[in-house]
Amino acid sequence: MITECWINGEPGDLIPVADRGVQYGDGLFETLAVKAGQISLLDYHLDRLQEGCRRLQLHAPSEKTLRAELLSAAAEQAAAVLKLIVTRGSAGRGYRFPRHTQTNRILMRHPWPAYPVEWADHGVHLKICNTHLGHNLRLAGLKHLNRLEQILARAEWSETDQVQEGLMLDEEGSVIEGTMTNVFAWLDHGVLATPDLRLCGVAGVMRRHLLERAEQAGVILRVASLALTECMQAQEIFVCNSLIGVWPVTAIGHWKYSVGSMNRQAQRWAAEC
Amino acid sequence: MITECWINGEPGDLIPVADRGVQYGDGLFETLAVKAGQISLLDYHLDRLQEGCRRLQLHAPSEKTLRAELLSAAAEQAAAVLKLIVTRGSAGRGYRFPRHTQTNRILMRHPWPAYPVEWADHGVHLKICNTHLGHNLRLAGLKHLNRLEQILARAEWSETDQVQEGLMLDEEGSVIEGTMTNVFAWLDHGVLATPDLRLCGVAGVMRRHLLERAEQAGVILRVASLALTECMQAQEIFVCNSLIGVWPVTAIGHWKYSVGSMNRQAQRWAAEC
Repeated sequence: MITECWINGEPGDLIPVADRGVQYGDGLFETLAVKAGQISLLDYHLDRLQEGCRRLQLHAPSEKTLRAELLSAAAEQAAAVLKLIVTRGSAGRGYRFPRHTQTNRILMRHPWPAYPVEWADHGVHLKICNTHLGHNLRLAGLKHLNRLEQILARAEWSETDQVQEGLMLDEEGSVIEGTMTNVFAWLDHGVLATPDLRLCGVAGVMRRHLLERAEQAGVILRVASLALTECMQAQEIFVCNSLIGVWPVTAIGHWKYSVGSMNRQAQRWAAEC
Repeated sequence: MITECWINGEPGDLIPVADRGVQYGDGLFETLAVKAGQISLLDYHLDRLQEGCRRLQLHAPSEKTLRAELLSAAAEQAAAVLKLIVTRGSAGRGYRFPRHTQTNRILMRHPWPAYPVEWADHGVHLKICNTHLGHNLRLAGLKHLNRLEQILARAEWSETDQVQEGLMLDEEGSVIEGTMTNVFAWLDHGVLATPDLRLCGVAGVMRRHLLERAEQAGVILRVASLALTECMQAQEIFVCNSLIGVWPVTAIGHWKYSVGSMNRQAQRWAAEC
């Protein structure tokens, strides 16, 4: 299967260079997992996109249209990835945007990524990235198109036999997320902790799902600043996103972790969606 | 005159959505002033672009090709703006980039912007933006395609009769730059100061030119952190970029400044290029 692409609902894979997505990364995206023709966590993806449009003052595409286009692209796919990009659309030169622009929707269907099953079964190794995440209250949490920090972080290693994901810190040294995942730490006093993403980071839909399921299950949650030293002393660590579900973490640099019951519980919760 | 566009040297204004510029803002740009068929500060623009390619690990287009394409687009133009975007080119899904991608060059020619001449003559008013600049050592100084901070800052005001530019601070409250300009302060002890941009901001080519000319003229320079309180007490303030040259600043919020001899000197230096 090769990538297929639609722009504003029509087949096509070219967009005008005047689009502010091209000019400035002025837009948002969502990466959605398709399984047996269904989209996992679709409502959460649409929620985050709406929230992003609101915060970027970007005219949101109709949810009905988005839902129809996504479900149509998902139909009859055994397993696939949909990537939806929403840009502010075309405008003249300069950072200022007109009040009314025609938002563009770019929808791509990719093959399901071939991550080795051992990564979910036996866990992954994380590198602590040298590229830090900058604080920005106004952009924190959003899955926007300004992703150079993640790109530079992901470029810090190439062979995936030793390192499978990178752990990103902010400039104060707090743990924020993986390059493409959110991170959870099962602390030794029976608390499941994840960074609050108030100042940076992407608030993943799988993170939201896991937080909700953990709360329903009566797990004590802590959504707040997470220190690297706390991760060092954690009983278990895992990373998650909408495509991989949950990967147990068995090493962060030289620190080792075992794959315990919280990892397996999180994987069961992830498998529900 | 309407906008004309070339992609990799050929007329065209569409690019593949798979381009990483579209997907992630994975690229750089330059905005160049054309006057009487010549490009102002061309060498400085090309320098910054090369430096950006190096830091983003992006295969730099040949300088000879860039120079030829830019000069060809500038030829016979009385006054115009060239915008050159260099992206990492197309690749598959995911932040990781292949070692060898085919960099794309997008070149646009825009009409000269119609800024009122009074802004240069009598000065402009700056608003202190609520949108802050996040720190990122690896991106600081570059004119990259991740520009949501500037976009949100520029969206903080709409009418340009009261406010002509916004002043952006980092989260610690230090002055960094304007939304589309660099800022200089002529402090009352005879020092010309501008923020160092070590942690954030765009190192403008006009800023470089002015620093070099001021140094040649024996002006005492300070390129370091600049506090808002220092700006408040400055004798003169000005903002600059390659298109506007130098605009004296006559107000930052409620603080007022007069247009003095350092402003006029900076304007003469800007007019040299």
